[in-house]
Amino acid sequence: MTDELKKGLEGVLVAESSLSRVDGDAGQLIYRGYDIDDLAENTTFEEVLYLLWHGHLPTRTELDDFQAAMAQERHLDDGVHHIIEELATADEEPMAALRTITSALSAYDPDVDPDADPTDLDANLRKGRRITAKMPTALAAFTRLRNGDQPVDPRDDLSHAANFLYMLNGEQPDDVLEETFDMALVLHADHGLNASTFSAMVTASTLADLHTAITSGIGTLSGSLHGGANQDVMEMLKELDNSGDDPDPLEWVEAAIENGRRIPGFGHRVYNVKDPRANILGGYAKSLAEASDMKWYDYSVAIEDHLMNEKGLAPNVDFYSASMYYQMGIPIDIYTPIFAISRVGGWIAHVLEQYDDNRLIRPRARYVGDENKTVTPIDER
Amino acid sequence: MTDELKKGLEGVLVAESSLSRVDGDAGQLIYRGYDIDDLAENTTFEEVLYLLWHGHLPTRTELDDFQAAMAQERHLDDGVHHIIEELATADEEPMAALRTITSALSAYDPDVDPDADPTDLDANLRKGRRITAKMPTALAAFTRLRNGDQPVDPRDDLSHAANFLYMLNGEQPDDVLEETFDMALVLHADHGLNASTFSAMVTASTLADLHTAITSGIGTLSGSLHGGANQDVMEMLKELDNSGDDPDPLEWVEAAIENGRRIPGFGHRVYNVKDPRANILGGYAKSLAEASDMKWYDYSVAIEDHLMNEKGLAPNVDFYSASMYYQMGIPIDIYTPIFAISRVGGWIAHVLEQYDDNRLIRPRARYVGDENKTVTPIDER
Repeated sequence: MTDELKKGLEGVLVAESSLSRVDGDAGQLIYRGYDIDDLAENTTFEEVLYLLWHGHLPTRTELDDFQAAMAQERHLDDGVHHIIEELATADEEPMAALRTITSALSAYDPDVDPDADPTDLDANLRKGRRITAKMPTALAAFTRLRNGDQPVDPRDDLSHAANFLYMLNGEQPDDVLEETFDMALVLHADHGLNASTFSAMVTASTLADLHTAITSGIGTLSGSLHGGANQDVMEMLKELDNSGDDPDPLEWVEAAIENGRRIPGFGHRVYNVKDPRANILGGYAKSLAEASDMKWYDYSVAIEDHLMNEKGLAPNVDFYSASMYYQMGIPIDIYTPIFAISRVGGWIAHVLEQYDDNRLIRPRARYVGDENKTVTPIDER
Repeated sequence: MTDELKKGLEGVLVAESSLSRVDGDAGQLIYRGYDIDDLAENTTFEEVLYLLWHGHLPTRTELDDFQAAMAQERHLDDGVHHIIEELATADEEPMAALRTITSALSAYDPDVDPDADPTDLDANLRKGRRITAKMPTALAAFTRLRNGDQPVDPRDDLSHAANFLYMLNGEQPDDVLEETFDMALVLHADHGLNASTFSAMVTASTLADLHTAITSGIGTLSGSLHGGANQDVMEMLKELDNSGDDPDPLEWVEAAIENGRRIPGFGHRVYNVKDPRANILGGYAKSLAEASDMKWYDYSVAIEDHLMNEKGLAPNVDFYSASMYYQMGIPIDIYTPIFAISRVGGWIAHVLEQYDDNRLIRPRARYVGDENKTVTPIDER
């Protein structure tokens, strides 16, 4: 027992994990030994889910079975639809809606049973497939309903990425959009013990079940210090764009910094160099921009160059995902929920590791409050 | 940075707190300097909420205003009622239902706004009152609906404790029931950095909002290593009772231990002596038993004596709350939700402390997985 206060738990080792390693000095991220660049280029999100949950990349047969099992689980029960309608009517925030809806999925999951062992691996792989398959359907339905559009039923002949864009927009995406979105899902699927992953593990450590742990993960991701930054980046780029006719991004960002403003999408507690995911996303963002409008990409590059030269700050994963999602026509306030529909793959994998060798996670606080008080009767206070 | 693995974060100091201190060797629990015995005997749950949230026990005027403000917030919006109906129809587990419903409350809270500062103290005190006032209404409505009964509207002229029992049973409780239930709420309101409190803090540390943090707390409490034990105790007592005509509790518990069974309601990571809350609850359980049926209390005492003599194990807070709630006619599977409607007071207080001096909580994992792998094309795997 040490008496040193570790408010952020910086450097405290709370688990051993075989899932992902972040090398902040080298700017490297691996999932189970595979470099993120290699995975982004050569695998799909479904292959990465299989890798994270089963420990190896699937063979063709394994992948076919896995994709079919996932695709079958895309539909939502009527009760879930009703809850989504209520939340859309109440104009709930998208991340809060996703948290409530995912929490509600447990009521309809055939493997949820108070007498079952919450750590049962086979049941959890089934539950994990269901949760991961249903979250995009829920998010797309919520997004359409709040705009007054009817939800689009999922299709089981499309990939996870293509099906989400299809349900969101009502039309099947072209190959470039599908590939770009799939790559974004691959990049966001896991990242060591970030705060949302850790919160899912804390919840699981009491032997709360998988749905419960994932609900905590979604909630924790919603905070502005974690998942909210890609939305902040896009709002900043739009503010820049609205600051005048043909605005100069360099001038704008210089003034913003001079006014003490924090620029979202830069810096990371773990990376001391450029986030490798930002490199990959930057390339895709450029391709998308070249096919339509270079403006947002040009703004982004100007801001990146300036912050690197002046402050030595490198962009993180949120910086280029912002303008990329924007060019894909995705509403800004569902950028963070899209982060969640990818990261759920990592949360599930970490919770499976937690269950496999569980110990209740319970740190201490140093009490610095009053002592030796006695209750005074209320009329004498 | 240390390389020692702390899987349960035992002994790691993650915060300073003025809220409660648990002395496991002395068997003492204090809230803001007041001994739990003193508070249980001389204050109400509303006074304890005020103490935890505002830092001092209220004057008569402060308490009157606070109680009136809480009582006004007991009603649920129609959308919340619809969600409760869906979950009751789906026969959701009570703790999962409470998690989903509490999560949904954010859609209807006038202080929830994506552009507002989630750490604003005044707004959080209002949100905290609303959440704490509405959770009992939601739990009572859910419990009645799943039994086919109509919900009972809250009354604003009753105490928090009396109003819950009124909404649950449809009749106003007598003074003994009200006082007993109020005392149970006081005892469960805070307990240092237990796992659910810590998970609420982890969620809040990303600047996720209060509803989100409380949703994590409820989820984490639901695990069998945390909040579920009082239900387990009652199920054990009923199993004992069903083991024969006039069963001998001593004989039964000896056989259970011989068969390697873990007896719920005993032992605690923090207490090395008897949990002070178990002492207080034992007294109330005895009074309730003397007024009706001594059986459950006698079983409990026999088991306590045996485990203390043979194993040196002392009962914890869950052990006597079980038979006490049972004698109050409360359904066994809402014992843990009742724990939650009390502990929410502590969660809110700890989240306020977290916001007041926030740092993102993000520990590390030691990567023990594969290295240097490259993706093989799928048809060559």
